[in-house]
Amino acid sequence: MMQAPLAGRKSADQKTLVEVSGLYFGGREFIVAAGPCAVETCEQMDVIAKGISGCGARLLRGGAYKPRTSPYDFQGLAEEGVPILAETGHRYGLAVVTEVVAPDHVAAVAAQVDMLQIGTRNMSNFELLKAVGRSGKPCLLKRGMSATLEELVMAAEYIMAHGNSHVVLCERGIRTFERYTRNTLDLSAVPALKELTHLPVVVDPSHGTGKRSLVRPMALAAAAAGADGLLLEVHHDPDHSWTGDGRQSLTIEELRRLMFELRTILPALGRTLNYRFSVDEQSRTEVMISGQENHLSLAGVMPG
Amino acid sequence: MMQAPLAGRKSADQKTLVEVSGLYFGGREFIVAAGPCAVETCEQMDVIAKGISGCGARLLRGGAYKPRTSPYDFQGLAEEGVPILAETGHRYGLAVVTEVVAPDHVAAVAAQVDMLQIGTRNMSNFELLKAVGRSGKPCLLKRGMSATLEELVMAAEYIMAHGNSHVVLCERGIRTFERYTRNTLDLSAVPALKELTHLPVVVDPSHGTGKRSLVRPMALAAAAAGADGLLLEVHHDPDHSWTGDGRQSLTIEELRRLMFELRTILPALGRTLNYRFSVDEQSRTEVMISGQENHLSLAGVMPG
Amino acid sequence: MMQAPLAGRKSADQKTLVEVSGLYFGGREFIVAAGPCAVETCEQMDVIAKGISGCGARLLRGGAYKPRTSPYDFQGLAEEGVPILAETGHRYGLAVVTEVVAPDHVAAVAAQVDMLQIGTRNMSNFELLKAVGRSGKPCLLKRGMSATLEELVMAAEYIMAHGNSHVVLCERGIRTFERYTRNTLDLSAVPALKELTHLPVVVDPSHGTGKRSLVRPMALAAAAAGADGLLLEVHHDPDHSWTGDGRQSLTIEELRRLMFELRTILPALGRTLNYRFSVDEQSRTEVMISGQENHLSLAGVMPG
Amino acid sequence: MMQAPLAGRKSADQKTLVEVSGLYFGGREFIVAAGPCAVETCEQMDVIAKGISGCGARLLRGGAYKPRTSPYDFQGLAEEGVPILAETGHRYGLAVVTEVVAPDHVAAVAAQVDMLQIGTRNMSNFELLKAVGRSGKPCLLKRGMSATLEELVMAAEYIMAHGNSHVVLCERGIRTFERYTRNTLDLSAVPALKELTHLPVVVDPSHGTGKRSLVRPMALAAAAAGADGLLLEVHHDPDHSWTGDGRQSLTIEELRRLMFELRTILPALGRTLNYRFSVDEQSRTEVMISGQENHLSLAGVMPG
Repeated sequence: MMQAPLAGRKSADQKTLVEVSGLYFGGREFIVAAGPCAVETCEQMDVIAKGISGCGARLLRGGAYKPRTSPYDFQGLAEEGVPILAETGHRYGLAVVTEVVAPDHVAAVAAQVDMLQIGTRNMSNFELLKAVGRSGKPCLLKRGMSATLEELVMAAEYIMAHGNSHVVLCERGIRTFERYTRNTLDLSAVPALKELTHLPVVVDPSHGTGKRSLVRPMALAAAAAGADGLLLEVHHDPDHSWTGDGRQSLTIEELRRLMFELRTILPALGRTLNYRFSVDEQSRTEVMISGQENHLSLAGVMPG
Repeated sequence: MMQAPLAGRKSADQKTLVEVSGLYFGGREFIVAAGPCAVETCEQMDVIAKGISGCGARLLRGGAYKPRTSPYDFQGLAEEGVPILAETGHRYGLAVVTEVVAPDHVAAVAAQVDMLQIGTRNMSNFELLKAVGRSGKPCLLKRGMSATLEELVMAAEYIMAHGNSHVVLCERGIRTFERYTRNTLDLSAVPALKELTHLPVVVDPSHGTGKRSLVRPMALAAAAAGADGLLLEVHHDPDHSWTGDGRQSLTIEELRRLMFELRTILPALGRTLNYRFSVDEQSRTEVMISGQENHLSLAGVMPG
Repeated sequence: MMQAPLAGRKSADQKTLVEVSGLYFGGREFIVAAGPCAVETCEQMDVIAKGISGCGARLLRGGAYKPRTSPYDFQGLAEEGVPILAETGHRYGLAVVTEVVAPDHVAAVAAQVDMLQIGTRNMSNFELLKAVGRSGKPCLLKRGMSATLEELVMAAEYIMAHGNSHVVLCERGIRTFERYTRNTLDLSAVPALKELTHLPVVVDPSHGTGKRSLVRPMALAAAAAGADGLLLEVHHDPDHSWTGDGRQSLTIEELRRLMFELRTILPALGRTLNYRFSVDEQSRTEVMISGQENHLSLAGVMPG
Repeated sequence: MMQAPLAGRKSADQKTLVEVSGLYFGGREFIVAAGPCAVETCEQMDVIAKGISGCGARLLRGGAYKPRTSPYDFQGLAEEGVPILAETGHRYGLAVVTEVVAPDHVAAVAAQVDMLQIGTRNMSNFELLKAVGRSGKPCLLKRGMSATLEELVMAAEYIMAHGNSHVVLCERGIRTFERYTRNTLDLSAVPALKELTHLPVVVDPSHGTGKRSLVRPMALAAAAAGADGLLLEVHHDPDHSWTGDGRQSLTIEELRRLMFELRTILPALGRTLNYRFSVDEQSRTEVMISGQENHLSLAGVMPG
C-alpha cells in the first residue's frame, strides 16, 4: 500500500466523524441522502424534497452539472441548478450535496451547498481534488468505476493534503463482466475501507446496481456491512426523469418502505436512523460509552 | 436471457425449498454450513464438527477432492477423506457437503454425503453437471469466478435437465481488478438470482473476500441481501491448515460471535437461525401464512 | 509466481518444439489450424477440409464434444463426430485436433486424433488435465476465460507432471467489461508466456474477438507478437453453422486472403508458413543456426 | 451504440487524416511519438530528443503536468516543463505532444505545443474535453482504463462537437484481473475503432503492458493490427527516471532496434516509417491510388 498519512488508519479504533451542517457521518446515525439524478425544475425538486424529508432522509442530492457520456444528452442546469437545489433542500431542513466537475466551479458551488460530491468519473481528476481540498467544504468522494481501494484512499489523501479533512468515501459499483447489473456493487469495500482508513463510508446502491428492484436489498446489505449511510436516487416520476436514469430510481413510496425496513434492522446493528446527533456533552458521552465508537475524532478538530 | 424452463422463475412468488436430510434451504431458517477447506485428519474434523455444531451450524463442509492451482500442493485425501467427513458430521448431527470434481466420482461420493458441491472451477464442466444431475443428490452449485448470472442459471438448468431439481446456488466472489480482496463478493447476485430463478441462494464470504476480517461483515450483509444461508470456512487452527487457506478461515470462537450476531439481525429480516424446520402439516402451514413465502414448492415434489 | 519446474522457462533461450504428427509447433513454421466450431456432417467436413488444405492450413479442428452454455443447444456429435473429423482430415493430409471434455473420453479420442484440445471452460478441470497428461497425446491447452497467465502455466504443469510434455498454450481472449467484442484478446500473453515458459504459444482470434471482421487484423497481430500459430474458425457456410458461431467464422475465401497476408508478413518476422519442417539433420541444423531458435529441444526428447 | 455523428464512421472507406505540424496521422506513414514519462531537466530532454530523433521518431512526448496516484509523488514541472519540452523538441525537428489536466491550462499549453494529450484518467473529464475542443489544437485522446470503445468514441465526439475535429485515438491498456502485466493492451480496439470511427488510432504499448520486455512485441503487433502509430516511453536512463516508470521505458538503443524492426515489417503492411508526407498534389495522389486509403479526408477540411 502507498503511504496515506492523513487518510490512512493509524490504529484499529481510530474513527473520524465528518460533520455536514449538523449531521455527523460516521457516528451512530445512519444517514440517508436522496434525490433525483438531475435537478430539473423547481416543482420537481419541491415534490421530491418534501417526499424524502417526510421519509427521514437527511440530505437532498441532485446534479446541476451532469457528466454525460454523450455531448448531446441533457448536461444539467449548471449554475442555474445549484440555487434551486440549495433553496429547496434548506426549505425542508435538508442539507444538500451536489457534484462539481471542474476546478473553477468549486468556489461558487461550495458557497451554496453543504457538501460537494466528486463523481466516479472524476475520482482521479487530481486538479479537481486539489480544488475541493482547498475549498475546505465537506466532500463525498465516489470510488472510480475501475479504481482500486488503494487509489480511492489516495484520492482522499489528495483532498486532505490540500487542507480538507472532511471526506466521506462512497462505494458506487465497479465495472466487471456481469451484464445483468449496470455495475457490480462491491460491498466488501465498506469493511475494507474501514480497515484502510478512519473515514466514514457510504454506499450508492442506485448506480451500484442500475436496477430499481435491487436497490432495496443492497441498501439493507450495505447497512449490515457497516456502511455509515446511503446515497439513493429517488424521483417522484422515475419514468419521466430527464436523464433516463429512472430505471434505477426509487419512487418516494419505495423510499418510505426502505426507510421502514432500515429502521427495523439498524438497531440490531447498533445504529439509528434519523436521530439528530448533536455534539453537546451529553450525546458525545453517549457515543463514547458505546463499545464500537470509543475513539471518535471530529474531522478538522484536534482531539483533546 | 437464454431459456431456462426448469431453473427460471415463472412468477414473482415462485420459490423452491431444497431439502437436505431434513434441512430446508430457501425456507425461513437461515442455514449455515461450516468447516475446513480440506479434510485433514479424523482428529481435526472431530474438533471442528463439535465446535461448529455447538455454534448452531447445520452442515459440515470439507474438501476431500481439492482442486489446487499447483499439482504439487496437497490435493486432498480423496476417497479416504469422504468417509471421515461423513462419519464425523453425522456423529454430531450435521449434514455433510463435499465437492465432486469428476463425473466418475459422483456416485461413490453421493452414497456417503448429504449434498454434493460443484466448485467454482467446475461450474461449466458440463459433464460433471450432467453426472450430478443424474445422481439426484442435492447440489450446492457455486458460481464460476468469471461466470455471468445467466451462465450460473444455465449451469443449474443442466443439472435440472438431467433429473435433479435439488439445486442451491452459491455466490462466492468474482474476479475483478481489485487486489485488496481475493475476489469481489457480488452480493447483488443474491436478489438478482432470486429474480431470475426460484432456487435458494447462499453466499460464501470466505472465498468471496479471502480475508478473515471481512468474513463477518459480509456474512451479515449476505443475510440482509436476502441470502438463504452461508458457506463458511472454519478451522480450529487456521494458521496450520494444510491448504494454506487459513487466512480466510474463521476460528470456532469467531464463528460463535458471528452466529450470535446473525441471531440478532435475522429476526428483523423475517428469518431464524437453527430452527429445525419439519415438513409436518403444522410447520408447513406456518410457513405458508407468512407473507413472503406463500408459494413455496418442495424441490422434486409436484405441488398439489 | 508458483513453482513450475516442468513448464517454467529455465533460461532466456530455452524453447521447446512440440511435434504433432510431423508438424512442429514452436519452430520456424507458423502453423495454422482451421475448421468449424462443430463437426456437423461428413459433407460439411469434406468441403471445409478440402478448402483449408488448399489454403495452406496444417490442422483440421472441429468439435465433437461441444461445451454449450445451454443444455438445449446442439451438444455435438460426440463419439460419432470424432471419426468423421479424423478421417476427413487425414484424407486431405491434415493433422486433426479436437476437444475432450471428460476424463473417461480421453483414451478413445486420443486413439483417433493427432492432438487433444482442453477448452477454456476446462482449463482448471484438473481431473481432465491429469487424464490428458497420462494419455501422452500432444495437447492444445486454452487459457481459461478468466485465468491469469500463472494459472495457465500451472495448468500446463499439471499435464506435464502427469507425464505429457507435448503442450501448446493457446490465448483465446479473456473476459472484461468491453461489450463490442465477445472477449478481449490478450496478445501480450504471447510474449509474456514466452518469458514464463518454454512452450509454444498459439492464438485463437475467432473466439478472442467473436467478430469475423476482427479476425484478420488480430491474426496478423498475433503473428507479429511472436505467436507460433493460429487456431481459426472456418466454415464454408458460416450463416448456417449448427452452433450459431458463424459470426466469428471466416469463409474459406477469407482464410485464403488471410493466409496470403500472413505469407507476406511472416518472412519479415523470421517465420515461414506451411514449410514442412522435418527433423532430419539438415533442417535441424538450419533451425539451430538461426539467431532466435538456437536452444530448441524437442518435447519429450532429452537434449543431447 | 450511441449516436456519434461527428466521430462515427459513415461509410466503410471513410478515413480522416489528422495533421500535426506537417505530420499526418492516418496516412501511409506510421508515426512514432517517443519520450520520457515526465519532463525532468533541459539536459534530460536534450539527450532523449536527440536520441529519438536519430531513430526516426516524429514527435517528442513528455509530461509537464503529471497525474500521480499519490499527492506526495513528483507532480511534474507544470508550466515550467512545457517550454522545455517545446523548445527541445522543435530544436530537433520533432513535433511535441503533452498532457493537459485542467480546463484552465489548455490555452497556455496549446500555444506552445503541437498536440495536446488527454490522459486515461481524464477521458471522461468532460469539462477538459470541451476545453480541448474549443482550443482547436490536435488532440491525442487516450482510452480510459476501464472505458468501453463506445465511451471512447463519445469522448472524441465531445471534442469534435466543441469545434475540434483533429482527434487521434489511443489504446493504452485496460484494467483486468491479470497481474503479470500492468494493464491488458486491447489491440482489437484498433480494428474495432476503425469500424466505429474514421479517426486515426495509435497504441501505447508502454503503459499498455507496464513491462519493458513486452513493449517491442506489442509495438510490432500494434502495427500489424493496423495502428497508425505508436506512443512510446523512452528514457536515456530508465532506472533513474523521476517518476519511477522506468520499468516500462525503452532505452534509446532499444528504440533504435524497434524502429529497425518496424521498418522491416511495415512495408508488408502497406505502411512506411518516417516518410514525410506532404500534402502537395503529387503525394496526395500517391495516397489516393493506394487501395486502402482512397477516401481520405483531412480533419477540419471539407472534402470537395
